[in-house]
Amino acid sequence: MVKMRMAEPKILKNAIGSIVELIEESAFRFTPKGVSMRALDPSRIAMVDFELPADAFDEYDVTDEMIIGVNLVDFEKALSRMKSGEELTLEISEDGSRLLLTFRGASTRKLGIPIINVEEEEVSEPKIQFTAEVGLTAEVLIDGLKDAEMVSESVLIMAKKGEFVISAEGKKGSSELRLKEGDAALTKLDVKQNTSAKFELEYLLKMVKGASSSDEIILKLGTDLPLEMEMKLEKGKLRFFLAPLIEA
Amino acid sequence: MVKMRMAEPKILKNAIGSIVELIEESAFRFTPKGVSMRALDPSRIAMVDFELPADAFDEYDVTDEMIIGVNLVDFEKALSRMKSGEELTLEISEDGSRLLLTFRGASTRKLGIPIINVEEEEVSEPKIQFTAEVGLTAEVLIDGLKDAEMVSESVLIMAKKGEFVISAEGKKGSSELRLKEGDAALTKLDVKQNTSAKFELEYLLKMVKGASSSDEIILKLGTDLPLEMEMKLEKGKLRFFLAPLIEA
Amino acid sequence: MVKMRMAEPKILKNAIGSIVELIEESAFRFTPKGVSMRALDPSRIAMVDFELPADAFDEYDVTDEMIIGVNLVDFEKALSRMKSGEELTLEISEDGSRLLLTFRGASTRKLGIPIINVEEEEVSEPKIQFTAEVGLTAEVLIDGLKDAEMVSESVLIMAKKGEFVISAEGKKGSSELRLKEGDAALTKLDVKQNTSAKFELEYLLKMVKGASSSDEIILKLGTDLPLEMEMKLEKGKLRFFLAPLIEA
Repeated sequence: MVKMRMAEPKILKNAIGSIVELIEESAFRFTPKGVSMRALDPSRIAMVDFELPADAFDEYDVTDEMIIGVNLVDFEKALSRMKSGEELTLEISEDGSRLLLTFRGASTRKLGIPIINVEEEEVSEPKIQFTAEVGLTAEVLIDGLKDAEMVSESVLIMAKKGEFVISAEGKKGSSELRLKEGDAALTKLDVKQNTSAKFELEYLLKMVKGASSSDEIILKLGTDLPLEMEMKLEKGKLRFFLAPLIEA
Repeated sequence: MVKMRMAEPKILKNAIGSIVELIEESAFRFTPKGVSMRALDPSRIAMVDFELPADAFDEYDVTDEMIIGVNLVDFEKALSRMKSGEELTLEISEDGSRLLLTFRGASTRKLGIPIINVEEEEVSEPKIQFTAEVGLTAEVLIDGLKDAEMVSESVLIMAKKGEFVISAEGKKGSSELRLKEGDAALTKLDVKQNTSAKFELEYLLKMVKGASSSDEIILKLGTDLPLEMEMKLEKGKLRFFLAPLIEA
Repeated sequence: MVKMRMAEPKILKNAIGSIVELIEESAFRFTPKGVSMRALDPSRIAMVDFELPADAFDEYDVTDEMIIGVNLVDFEKALSRMKSGEELTLEISEDGSRLLLTFRGASTRKLGIPIINVEEEEVSEPKIQFTAEVGLTAEVLIDGLKDAEMVSESVLIMAKKGEFVISAEGKKGSSELRLKEGDAALTKLDVKQNTSAKFELEYLLKMVKGASSSDEIILKLGTDLPLEMEMKLEKGKLRFFLAPLIEA
C-alpha cells in the first residue's frame, strides 16, 4: 500500500523542478517513515539528497518499503499540470505499472506516469570539513549567479568574517555579489576561516531553478572542497552537493 | 451598406480566435438579421457554425444581403490589435476591396484587410441522435484536454448517469478528468444512456482555443457519433461539430 | 575621476534600451557638466543624440573630460540586470579597463563591462526647417506603428490643422491612426503648413522600443524631410533623427 496526500504540494513541485535539471531518471524509496531519493547526476559532479518525512503529508499510508523508479521529466510535467489551490494525492495504480497523481480542486483530474526500472544507486553522503556556513534568500543567490552568467561559465564563492562574496570574471566583464553582516538577505554567516572555492555556474543555476525567491538557502563551504546547498523546507530536506573546479 | 458597431467586441475576437485554428479562409454572410458563417475544415473532420444576430451589435446597418470572404488569419491578427476597452466598428471600404475595422479608445485606429474571393460552402447541419448533453466550464474542459495531450493524441469522452469523464491512455501514461453531479464545474448533465466516443485531441484543443476560462461549453454526445460543442454566447452562437475516431 | 549615482536609473535604462536597437558600439563623453553621446547608425539613416546633465544624477563627480567607449549590447544587458528599486552607481575600474555598474538594494551587486576603443564620431546636429510639431503618448504612437507593421514596411506621417495621421498601405491591407485636436493622447499639435513624409517602419519601431507607454514623445516634421523624435525626459534629452523615404 502506497498512498499519500498533500494539501499544499508546492514543496514537492519545487523540489522535483530543481532535481529534474540534474537527473533524468531516479528511484524513490517509500517507507513507513517517508519518501527519499539520493542520486548522482550523469557527470557525477553533483549529488541530490531529498527527503520528505511522513509528517510532511496530510495523509501518509505506506505499509511496506518500496522502491519506485520514474522518469523525472514525466514526473515534473505531470506536477506542472497541478493548479494552485489543488490538493495532490500520490498512489500506485492497481496493476503496479503507474504512479498516479490525483489533483482535486474544481474538478478531479488524474495523471498516471509509467513506473520504470531504475536501480537505486548506492550513494553515501560525502563527509566534508566545511569551514563556512552561509544562509541567504534564494532571490539574492539567483541574482548573483545570473549576473555571473553574463560574463563567465564559472563562479568563485568566498566567505570571510563579516562578508560573503560571489564573483566572476571573463572577457565579457566582471560580476560581484557582496553581502555583509547585517544585510537582510544574509540570514546566517558562520565563518571558521577564510574560505573560497570555484564552481561551474551551469550546475548552480540548475540547483536553484525550482526555488521560490523568498526561500532560504544554506550554503556550506570549504576551500577547494565540494559545496553543500540546502533548500530550507518547512518539513523534509533537499540538499545538493557540487564538486569544485580545481585550477590546474 | 454594411456597417456595424460593438461596444464589447470580445465575443467576436474569441470566436474568430477559435475558428481560425480550423479554417483559414471563409465567407461571411451579412444580412439585415445578422452575420453568419458555416464551413468545414480542410480535412472535413470538423465543422464550424457561427451566428451573431443584429441585436448582438450596438449598431447594425446592413441593407442588403452580402457575402464577404476574408482570410481568417488576417482577420484574427487585426482583431488582436484591438485593446481592452476599445469599441469596434466593421464596415466595407468605399471601393469594396477591404473590410475595415475601426478601434475607438484613446485614439482612433483603422485596419483594413483584403476582401477575397471565397465561395460560400453549402454545408447543411448534421442531424445526430445525441444521447447525452453535458455543460461545463471552459477552464475544466481545457484542463482535461491538456492533461490528455501529455499522454496521447486521442481522447475518450464518456457520460453516464451522474458522471462525465474524459480519459486518455498511451505509452507515456494515462489521464482522466472526472466530474460528478453536484460539482460546481459541471453545469448540466443530461444522460439518456451510457455514451462514449473517441476524438482527435488536436481538433478539440483548437476548438477551445479562443474560449475564456469562465465560459460555459455544452457538449452533445452519442456513442461513436460526432460531437457538437457549443460555446454559450450572451447573444449569437458558436458551434463546432467533430467526427469521431472509429477503431478499425 | 568618473563616478555618478542615480536613485532612479530607469531613465538611463530606457534610453540605452532604445539606442542599442540602432547602434552597437558608442563613445560616451563624460564632462563636469554631464554625459552625452551622439552617433549615426551603421546605415547612416538614423542619428541618436543623448544627454544627461549632471543634475539628472543624485551624485555626480567627473573632474576631467573623458571619452569612454562601450559595447551598447553589453551595457544594455548589464542595465537589464538592475531590479526595480535598486540604486545605480557608475564608475571606471581602477585599472581603467571597465565601466562598473553597482546596483544597491537587498544586496550589493557589481557588473563590469569592458571599456573599448571607439572613435567619437563628429556628428553635427542636422538643421531642418520643420513645419509641424506633434506631441503624443508613447503608447498611442507605438500602437499606430505596430498596426502599420501588419501591412507594410513603411509608414506615411501627416500633420495638418487639427489632425495628425499615421497610415500605411500594402498588399496585406491598410492601417491608419488618427488623432484630432482635443484627443487626450495628443499633447501638442502645432502645424505651420500641411506636412507629410514617409519613413521606414523598422527604424521608428526601434526608436520607441525603450519608451514606457505613458512617456510623452515630440515629433518634428517637414514634408519629405528627416523627422526628429524627442523622448521627453524629466532631466536631459534623448532625440532621434531619421531620414525620410523619398519615392523615385
